[in-house]
Amino acid sequence: MASILRCSPKLRTAARVPAARALSSTARLRAAEKPYFPNEPSAPSLSTAIPGPKNKAAAAELDEVFDVRSLNMLTDYQQSIGNYIADLDGNKLLDVYAQIASIPVGYNNPHLKQVAQSDEMITSLINRPALGNFPSADWSNILRTGILKAAPKGLNQVFTAMAGSDANETAYKAAFMYYRQLQRGGPNVEFTEEEMQSTMNNQAFHPVLQVRLPRPSLRISSTTRSKAIHKLDIPAFDWPQATFPQLKYPLEEHVQENAAEEKRCLEEVERLIKEYHNPVAAVMVEPIQSEGGDNHASPAFFQGLRDITKRTNVLFIVDEVQTGVGATGKFWAHDHWNLSSPPDMVTFSKKAQTAGYYFGNPALRPNKPYRQFNTWMGDPSRALIFRGIIEEIERLGLVENTASTGDYLYGGLERLAQKYPAHFQNLRGKGQGTFIAWDTPKRDEFLAKAKTVGVNIGGSGAQAIRLRPMLVFQKHHADILLESIEKIIKLL
Amino acid sequence: MASILRCSPKLRTAARVPAARALSSTARLRAAEKPYFPNEPSAPSLSTAIPGPKNKAAAAELDEVFDVRSLNMLTDYQQSIGNYIADLDGNKLLDVYAQIASIPVGYNNPHLKQVAQSDEMITSLINRPALGNFPSADWSNILRTGILKAAPKGLNQVFTAMAGSDANETAYKAAFMYYRQLQRGGPNVEFTEEEMQSTMNNQAFHPVLQVRLPRPSLRISSTTRSKAIHKLDIPAFDWPQATFPQLKYPLEEHVQENAAEEKRCLEEVERLIKEYHNPVAAVMVEPIQSEGGDNHASPAFFQGLRDITKRTNVLFIVDEVQTGVGATGKFWAHDHWNLSSPPDMVTFSKKAQTAGYYFGNPALRPNKPYRQFNTWMGDPSRALIFRGIIEEIERLGLVENTASTGDYLYGGLERLAQKYPAHFQNLRGKGQGTFIAWDTPKRDEFLAKAKTVGVNIGGSGAQAIRLRPMLVFQKHHADILLESIEKIIKLL
Repeated sequence: MASILRCSPKLRTAARVPAARALSSTARLRAAEKPYFPNEPSAPSLSTAIPGPKNKAAAAELDEVFDVRSLNMLTDYQQSIGNYIADLDGNKLLDVYAQIASIPVGYNNPHLKQVAQSDEMITSLINRPALGNFPSADWSNILRTGILKAAPKGLNQVFTAMAGSDANETAYKAAFMYYRQLQRGGPNVEFTEEEMQSTMNNQAFHPVLQVRLPRPSLRISSTTRSKAIHKLDIPAFDWPQATFPQLKYPLEEHVQENAAEEKRCLEEVERLIKEYHNPVAAVMVEPIQSEGGDNHASPAFFQGLRDITKRTNVLFIVDEVQTGVGATGKFWAHDHWNLSSPPDMVTFSKKAQTAGYYFGNPALRPNKPYRQFNTWMGDPSRALIFRGIIEEIERLGLVENTASTGDYLYGGLERLAQKYPAHFQNLRGKGQGTFIAWDTPKRDEFLAKAKTVGVNIGGSGAQAIRLRPMLVFQKHHADILLESIEKIIKLL
Repeated sequence: MASILRCSPKLRTAARVPAARALSSTARLRAAEKPYFPNEPSAPSLSTAIPGPKNKAAAAELDEVFDVRSLNMLTDYQQSIGNYIADLDGNKLLDVYAQIASIPVGYNNPHLKQVAQSDEMITSLINRPALGNFPSADWSNILRTGILKAAPKGLNQVFTAMAGSDANETAYKAAFMYYRQLQRGGPNVEFTEEEMQSTMNNQAFHPVLQVRLPRPSLRISSTTRSKAIHKLDIPAFDWPQATFPQLKYPLEEHVQENAAEEKRCLEEVERLIKEYHNPVAAVMVEPIQSEGGDNHASPAFFQGLRDITKRTNVLFIVDEVQTGVGATGKFWAHDHWNLSSPPDMVTFSKKAQTAGYYFGNPALRPNKPYRQFNTWMGDPSRALIFRGIIEEIERLGLVENTASTGDYLYGGLERLAQKYPAHFQNLRGKGQGTFIAWDTPKRDEFLAKAKTVGVNIGGSGAQAIRLRPMLVFQKHHADILLESIEKIIKLL
């Protein structure tokens, strides 16, 4: 049975139109599409090698005071527009990496510019509040018309934070406190004197079970089992980790094998919850395991996690830092799952341009003030930007755009995969908007060559190319990207 | 001997002018002083009880979506100006808490308003970069004319971050990596395969020794031994902690005892470095231990820490998150120490309105890219605000203002302490700008009553009142504060 199901995706797509014909036919479509940015370049334009002379000089100057070894390119943001990123030497590249998946509605978006010039913004920039103590009088309104307007179904409260790692860290803390409160017998049971004295070294407490290779993060708590370079020399807690399913692609051609792999992973989760030497407070998972190389799982798998966590009385946290805010063709990636009950917490950042976690159960507020607290607890300026992003997403129908452009792009990639099988393995992300990836043997070379054809593109894991275009990425951009990928392959 | 040195500070100051006479004489000074904010109120004004009806209603609305149990007051930032904070009911209070010590140059500062309206700001708000990969072309210039212009003596590089806890956490990481690099034999020694595989559980590695009751923070790494409420239920690493000296005030009257206490603490530090079961990577200390209740130590103590860390080859990190940016009458509090060599790292946030750590030794950059990395690595919008703050500090001479206003205020508090000895113990912060505190037996009542006389004031530790006015706090504000404190005492 398995061998029949494992028939090659390349063979299956062989019957379709050849990539070359498809590309030329789509070029006609392109002209008819109304662009979101009328003054966006119609194609990449290169005036120097990359990095050009001005970039090199500026990088050397920056290096004197700031570590530039992870520098990709010095950017001229004034000249960047829509999906195009400009460098110092006048080169303009189609950007499908978008500041590590964090720019949602295009460079120099006119609506966001209005938000940036508003009185509300100016006030919040120059009078930064300590949000836990002195929120602005309109903070409730800013939340309700912004962050909370986009809240996942079933969740109606938010704890705001500064960045993705911060969002996850504070969600963990909320989970610890909730879980221990249950153990104590409720929110009104006072801490004992012994407890107050015995918090010196509570490493053994109630870990969070991560179903993933975690995103590499600066936070000590989350530097557990990902890329070694990120965690080497950094202390880590003894937290359990269950394997994220390693599925075969395309998913629809390996249904049975993949279901078996997901079953095995769910059993591992349940076993770890029941047998781990410390009681588990929460299970955390990314809808698509992003930094680990874009690994997907089925709605049934995530429903399985929800069922297990309900049954074992463990919190279910969904990390939507990278998948959230429209990129997968739904506003939240977990909207694809049709869960029987919502996650307990959903963390967000990146395309939200701010951060935090959503929740619904009031008991997830710590039972005393100041248990979850810091000076700023977020930044209202960035919350205003998120509100502007949500408005722009609604006005332009950008979630729908990402869904349809993603399908269109995926079709083109399937044709390329068929034409260049040596360069495309495990194409994945079908039906997941533009959140698409594939493996390729000469990955790093591919990424470097991409700049020479005018495309800024990113990788993840050991050999994946990951596409992370903005929500304003349209079919005519997809055409350029597909043509560019073909050019890159020919250069390899 | 000890009993002679322990003579009461109240007896010593008895010979000075009585508080009442001092206050009335200073009222004449007040009129002559040129205010920084011409349109600032001349005194607090109250139109309702606090919280007033509008505040109560708005708090109830906010509570539906955001935890308000640590709410102090909902703030009308549009109506707040200079040193005065306005609430929703039209009350205007003299603010000597300043968003937990984080507002430096006054509410609605006109220069910062210009910065907020600049093209640079708008671009940085709507095109937020992933700073490690795609910094803006002018990032080097923004750093050099801003954050780095204020760099502590001897330090010329910066790692930018989002908030104070983030600044400390990333500084720890840099320390771990530096220390392990030394152990390995230098930056060019490659990690072994065994090391890459053995990072699963490196809790035992090279801790940071904290000479303090640490600031209560959300970060798991720093929730070690402070207020129990902040760390209860949160896992913590097994890191050593040395006692911050518990000195007697006023410092100048307990020189010998205090020197003995500091010697004891230095010996403890050295013993812990030498004998702790894991090798210590760094010693971290706050110039004034702030959240723990405003504990001071002498320049000799900090020079002693520098000497020990040099001798034992351990990094010396100074946490200036709360003390930095002018509040102590020097730009950095450690400028008071005249150290023989600068700290290895200085962390900053709060009044900088951004965050990060300064360093000088290039070896403190991790030896490979991406070892210290996240998506945003700070926020250029907030770096622009810090640059505007630095410009305003220079233009108005605000460090000098804080030094002289601090001396003036301290003198007035000494007189009050003499008049009301039951309400003033351990007045401290002489010569430390406006970074002044004292202990009082009815502390929480004092803080609550302060609002009824039009002053917003904060506490720290178990029974301290801590003053954290802005850098634009002038002598005429000090007069109002002194009068208000006397009124509060009479209400207790």
